[in-house]
Amino acid sequence: MSAARHRVVIVGGGFGGLFAAKFLRRAPVDVTLIDKTNHHLFQPLLYQCATGILSEGAIAPPLRQVLRKHGNVRVELANVSDIDLDARRLRAERPLGPPLEIEYDSLIVATGAAGSYFGHDEYATVAPGLKTVDDALEVRARIFGAFEMAEMEEDPEAQRAWLTFAVVGGGPTGVEVAGQITELAHRSLKRNFRRIDPASARVILFDAGPAVLAAFGNKLSATAERSLERIGVEVRTGTRVNEISYRDITVEGPDGPETIPCHVKVWAAGVTASPLAAMLAKASGAETDRAGRIAVLPDCSLPGHPEVFAVGDMMSLEKLPGVAEVAMQSGIHAARTIKRRVEHGGESQPFKYRDLGSMASIARFSAVVDFKGIRVSGFPGWLMWVFVHLTFLTGFKNRFTALYRWVTAFVGKSRDERTISIQQASARVIAARAGVRPGEEDLSRFVERQPTG
Amino acid sequence: MSAARHRVVIVGGGFGGLFAAKFLRRAPVDVTLIDKTNHHLFQPLLYQCATGILSEGAIAPPLRQVLRKHGNVRVELANVSDIDLDARRLRAERPLGPPLEIEYDSLIVATGAAGSYFGHDEYATVAPGLKTVDDALEVRARIFGAFEMAEMEEDPEAQRAWLTFAVVGGGPTGVEVAGQITELAHRSLKRNFRRIDPASARVILFDAGPAVLAAFGNKLSATAERSLERIGVEVRTGTRVNEISYRDITVEGPDGPETIPCHVKVWAAGVTASPLAAMLAKASGAETDRAGRIAVLPDCSLPGHPEVFAVGDMMSLEKLPGVAEVAMQSGIHAARTIKRRVEHGGESQPFKYRDLGSMASIARFSAVVDFKGIRVSGFPGWLMWVFVHLTFLTGFKNRFTALYRWVTAFVGKSRDERTISIQQASARVIAARAGVRPGEEDLSRFVERQPTG
Repeated sequence: MSAARHRVVIVGGGFGGLFAAKFLRRAPVDVTLIDKTNHHLFQPLLYQCATGILSEGAIAPPLRQVLRKHGNVRVELANVSDIDLDARRLRAERPLGPPLEIEYDSLIVATGAAGSYFGHDEYATVAPGLKTVDDALEVRARIFGAFEMAEMEEDPEAQRAWLTFAVVGGGPTGVEVAGQITELAHRSLKRNFRRIDPASARVILFDAGPAVLAAFGNKLSATAERSLERIGVEVRTGTRVNEISYRDITVEGPDGPETIPCHVKVWAAGVTASPLAAMLAKASGAETDRAGRIAVLPDCSLPGHPEVFAVGDMMSLEKLPGVAEVAMQSGIHAARTIKRRVEHGGESQPFKYRDLGSMASIARFSAVVDFKGIRVSGFPGWLMWVFVHLTFLTGFKNRFTALYRWVTAFVGKSRDERTISIQQASARVIAARAGVRPGEEDLSRFVERQPTG
Repeated sequence: MSAARHRVVIVGGGFGGLFAAKFLRRAPVDVTLIDKTNHHLFQPLLYQCATGILSEGAIAPPLRQVLRKHGNVRVELANVSDIDLDARRLRAERPLGPPLEIEYDSLIVATGAAGSYFGHDEYATVAPGLKTVDDALEVRARIFGAFEMAEMEEDPEAQRAWLTFAVVGGGPTGVEVAGQITELAHRSLKRNFRRIDPASARVILFDAGPAVLAAFGNKLSATAERSLERIGVEVRTGTRVNEISYRDITVEGPDGPETIPCHVKVWAAGVTASPLAAMLAKASGAETDRAGRIAVLPDCSLPGHPEVFAVGDMMSLEKLPGVAEVAMQSGIHAARTIKRRVEHGGESQPFKYRDLGSMASIARFSAVVDFKGIRVSGFPGWLMWVFVHLTFLTGFKNRFTALYRWVTAFVGKSRDERTISIQQASARVIAARAGVRPGEEDLSRFVERQPTG
């Protein structure tokens, strides 16, 4: 790499950032990709990691490995804390050593969005979201742990509370996770227990709006609701959450308020843009929307800063949805704009989103797909879902692994990733039981730590 | 199940306990299997979980799942705290509710052994062992995290310390983990980094005795040492560990004492029997040996208590080694004795170990095997290693998964399980750097917690 080359910095290794970096492979630029984790995350399959179908490795390949043959890309494990648009420089904290100070000629910010509790951050410890690998492992341990606790419980009411699963939010993630908890209870855990019947588990999907998968249109939305109910999910639309505690969830729906004893809650209700969106908005004078996303110009750049792009879930542009496909395409668009400028100069083009449709899987052999107004559901929809997800999974081996795991989980019954580590086994369930926050109680009563612990 | 049936309690779901429970499938007995984790653990492949080849699910199938078709077996998640041999009753703590109080007619205790630091338990946080799933995930994060830290480090000496890996103990686990760290550094991480060359990593295997794999005999031991050195492992026999800290390891060998700066240390040097061995010894008047194992009668039962058996790694009998094969066979022996007594009555038989040989893999395509004096090494040894491990892995799917991962890791180069979760990424490395114990430092500087965290 020569120092005189055009320097591109990409912040975030999700779909937007990774696809931008890949696109720049043959461009005459030096790329630095900064992420605070060591992996790209295939978020659309995170719910499968949480429900024991896929291992974390299958959906979270290391960025370095994915980009190893991209000789012009350097990956930095760091957390961006400041961006100086005028000096074209940013600062990122690292786990060791002084902060990384790095200058750019072009900048792509693609740090996405995190879950939002709409002002109730105190729900975070009682109702984890599904945005990171940590979230998925946490939810996995809670789900499988709850069945263990129910088996141990002698009081039928308390048992019932362990076997009640609340999912908040009827978007794709909420629908998929509710569907998968139901399937694992009915199929995968069959004959595993002696006192409880896992199939008696109650899975309730709450949404404040009038329908699940509202973005898919009335027809598919109704199909999805029917499919969910057929496999055993209780769908409660028009129902808002008033309160979540360790022991229960209080909701208010058409029939008035109700408190449901329930240990495992999964939050899939809202997102809020990465804090970098607000930082960039303030520095460039751009607006942010209600979800904290930054309003970008039609070419995804910032007002007054044609060299800075915000892409994916953190950008607000023509009401584009916060989906992987928008992130990929906008990341590539920004990268293409940079490549063209460096190679030929000239005007940038507005970003045009090619809508490849949206899809959500309900259960095995059942998915809903909206493809340019063509709506497909049931088994044909599920085949499309399989095809598309295999296509976009990063790496041949991860594709093969996912396909194999799907065959064993959906044609067979097994979930191969049900291991609860000792740490996971104990903290949450004891804490939930005792009504304290994890970490506050001395766990030594149960967990006989190995000398190696 | 009828209350009048003979009640067998098995403590521990490792090789001894699981195979005993399986053997009793068609016996007229009711079995309760108690374990403090939810899984059986295939310990001989734990080092592959630690080095990114296998997911935890592949080596730790849930006990309930493995035993789901054994209608006479009930699995309890609990930690045995007291055994009353006279009353034939035991007590086990559970994560919730009152302790489990359970009576038995026959008891098999198979709680194995944990790592031993020979009186230096303070090494536990700086040099984890490889005995549990938690250990493997911890070691995995440390190994892959160290390469990340080295890439970040600017001082060459500090970089060197991150790229130096010390493995203490030259038995099969030590040899295998040293071999695999070397292979991943040389092959799997190729082209992943821009500043460091992962292949420059230094892997040092220490053993206080005169040779690695001493139990395999002089010839194989020498072969193993040559194979290790050929792939790049520094083998330091006759070298004892004087001190381990966060930053370095001090050893004393033929050339005198030496302090080697080194962040990642793995302890594979000694084992100590489960505390239940001492408890049983005290109650029955049996002896324990130096490793805390209980001296059992020739039929694996306790003196004065023909209805109580101690099997596997926790028993001391005819100098049998602490290997999976002994645990399996002795577990089955105890189960067979119980079945015979219940069905026909009569004398018990002494346990006769059928030595199926020992083996250790050095690297891809290279293993040493000792089979009744027939000694095989290199590729033929490795094929035997593959065959035997596939045979004993629990479950067809885990076998298939392992085989597939071995093909991709050994014929190809990839390690599919390299994900470091945010929690893992930070705590250890910052702590190591700062010289503090994990958890003591405020990690918020690096880890921007999601609201879901």
